[in-house]
Amino acid sequence: MTFTPYTLDPDLDIQLEREVDVPPALVWKAWTTPDLLTQWFAPKPYETPHCEIDLRPGGIFRTVMRSPEGEEFDGAGCYLEVLPEERLVWTSALAPGYRPQPGEMAFTAIIELQPTASGGTRYRAIAMHQTPEDNKKHADMGFIEGWGAALDQLVALAKTL
Amino acid sequence: MTFTPYTLDPDLDIQLEREVDVPPALVWKAWTTPDLLTQWFAPKPYETPHCEIDLRPGGIFRTVMRSPEGEEFDGAGCYLEVLPEERLVWTSALAPGYRPQPGEMAFTAIIELQPTASGGTRYRAIAMHQTPEDNKKHADMGFIEGWGAALDQLVALAKTL
Repeated sequence: MTFTPYTLDPDLDIQLEREVDVPPALVWKAWTTPDLLTQWFAPKPYETPHCEIDLRPGGIFRTVMRSPEGEEFDGAGCYLEVLPEERLVWTSALAPGYRPQPGEMAFTAIIELQPTASGGTRYRAIAMHQTPEDNKKHADMGFIEGWGAALDQLVALAKTL
Repeated sequence: MTFTPYTLDPDLDIQLEREVDVPPALVWKAWTTPDLLTQWFAPKPYETPHCEIDLRPGGIFRTVMRSPEGEEFDGAGCYLEVLPEERLVWTSALAPGYRPQPGEMAFTAIIELQPTASGGTRYRAIAMHQTPEDNKKHADMGFIEGWGAALDQLVALAKTL
């Protein structure tokens, strides 16, 4: 299977796009294995003490992040598409099992992976919002910087696997 | 493929379950063909002048319903699971392409079809809500009666196919 790369809506979406020097198989493994994800998902000094993954459409994707002050952020969303080593889609607008759930600044995330000629990965992480206000708020919270720092951590971890 | 029948949460879900004397293939066809769906989807005297279907996860499911007084109700949701002649899932909490969308009384719908020994269909239509209040409101609006009347129309149409 292959997928059609997502076409960005600049008013409603933010995106981190980078080339990294680890292959799609390892990026996928880091995104879909709880014991790995907890090691890279939150940009330091934040941590991810807990993660639950049921890797199928409708399955749970839960992360608990913790600030340096000990405040915890516990969120459970729902996978929508699982295309191994190519594309992972989940949303915070649905709870596991597809039940609608309330929540501020709901977003759907798409991770797209494409192999590069040199054995690395063309990596895209996209967050789709329902309003330009939500999009701006997420951007102002540091989406690009935060997801970028986490990606650095992912790559460093992947090189040890 | 087969599916695991959905387990109802009585505080958050409402369900119409019935046995009808047309086979799953025809029920599926009536649910997934725009020119058929417009003929049965709204319980009379309501009508469904327009319907759009892109039958894949992430694809549009849009219906325009019209009251006898001419008021129109235009809603576009997103398919989540498409398992031909067995299971159809969509949600109003996501727009086509999985983008979160606002909306009162968001729900996810599951249609489950199972063949009966006599050649008919064990039919379940489930609406999953995010709160007991939404669930009650949807029930009080006449979900069971409305979806039941629409199912009668579907069966009558299917017998002409």
